[in-house]
Amino acid sequence: MKRRLLLVSNSTLHGGGYLQHCQQNIQDFFGKDVKRILFVPYALHDRDAYTKTARDKFKTLGYEVDSVHETPDPVDAVRKAEGIFIGGGNTFRLLKALYDNKLVTEIRKRVLQDGIPYMGSSAGTNVSTISINTTNDMPIVYPPTFAAIGLVPFNINPHYLDADTFFSYKNPKSMLITQYHEESDTPCVLGLREGSMLLVEGNKATLLGSTKARLFQRGKQTTEYEPGSDLSFLLTDVQ
Amino acid sequence: MKRRLLLVSNSTLHGGGYLQHCQQNIQDFFGKDVKRILFVPYALHDRDAYTKTARDKFKTLGYEVDSVHETPDPVDAVRKAEGIFIGGGNTFRLLKALYDNKLVTEIRKRVLQDGIPYMGSSAGTNVSTISINTTNDMPIVYPPTFAAIGLVPFNINPHYLDADTFFSYKNPKSMLITQYHEESDTPCVLGLREGSMLLVEGNKATLLGSTKARLFQRGKQTTEYEPGSDLSFLLTDVQ
Repeated sequence: MKRRLLLVSNSTLHGGGYLQHCQQNIQDFFGKDVKRILFVPYALHDRDAYTKTARDKFKTLGYEVDSVHETPDPVDAVRKAEGIFIGGGNTFRLLKALYDNKLVTEIRKRVLQDGIPYMGSSAGTNVSTISINTTNDMPIVYPPTFAAIGLVPFNINPHYLDADTFFSYKNPKSMLITQYHEESDTPCVLGLREGSMLLVEGNKATLLGSTKARLFQRGKQTTEYEPGSDLSFLLTDVQ
Repeated sequence: MKRRLLLVSNSTLHGGGYLQHCQQNIQDFFGKDVKRILFVPYALHDRDAYTKTARDKFKTLGYEVDSVHETPDPVDAVRKAEGIFIGGGNTFRLLKALYDNKLVTEIRKRVLQDGIPYMGSSAGTNVSTISINTTNDMPIVYPPTFAAIGLVPFNINPHYLDADTFFSYKNPKSMLITQYHEESDTPCVLGLREGSMLLVEGNKATLLGSTKARLFQRGKQTTEYEPGSDLSFLLTDVQ
């Protein structure tokens, strides 16, 4: 499998600039061969403003950005893309727009079969997984399914936070994920704290960034992983 | 319209006992004529344990509890109910189970046409409104729609928290609700802080409890309301 993914927890870290904390990872990931990146701004309401933000940032890293919302034929834009970046915002809005524009299958094909690099941040990371069942976002619109692009066979919870820092002592995020695992046949959930990201190259997965990640598996104790950990075992169920 | 609703933000306040902070309101609401309350435990996974918790508490308040999950025919149980209480947990799980058991229309009929009292807490408050679009919960299962029982024509955000106490400075709950209002034709959202509840009697709505509520209206400034405030204007769009 040619798959290459950079799945980032969060776009902005502790008041730093947009994608600043992972800019070196972005350059390492897209490399010198990719010149133009197709941006998907669907997760935010103001797509023009969002595209400008992404375009300005990627310009400083040496990449041109085309936004899928500026093209007359989004499917064709995906077919011709050298690389894809889906930005954060509201995951429900993003997934619905991906289905409305018939991009889910097309992105899956390009990434898994053609091997073009896929970067996601926050909501863009959520939709790259098997489903959006573990998003933190508010369900402001109704997508046709919670099944997502399925580039990996597990779930990710971006912006993962430990109980003591979460907004309510009664609803730590670990408890919300536990609720998910009360349902039958739910996959693993990787809690990516802000500052961390997952690099997937073929069947190899590595935790990158500055913070640890916590893995939730149905019926098992949770496990903590340090940056640099090999998480390739998460990929073994891939279809 | 005969409608009588007690919509509570949260079941447990600051480490107090289950429904302790609103027990006087519960007795005032169900009164002396109601003897048995039909409990809906669908929002939690362990329905037996949840029913025991609710049954024990309501017993101390002078009410017997029948749980809808213990009856062979949930629709018939709703048809015969003197009063209904839907407890908190996961809103997606709750709404899906309500549809799976064909209870949405039946509860709506009993409350709006027959005037039986309806109490909701947290997720049980969410599903009483026009939709679950403003829940805080994780979408662990996929309900057939986000449209809910529709006992009131607006949305509620239970456990509403102000920006400075929310889990991330980038995602205050007010911003999440603003995202909702970026979508077209979205109704008002009443942010019910923990400790507050809404009493609806016919076309009169009153804020009760110990904390203020914040109202979000599309394209307008938010407004704060003190306990005791008359919020009847929220009901004017009811179908």
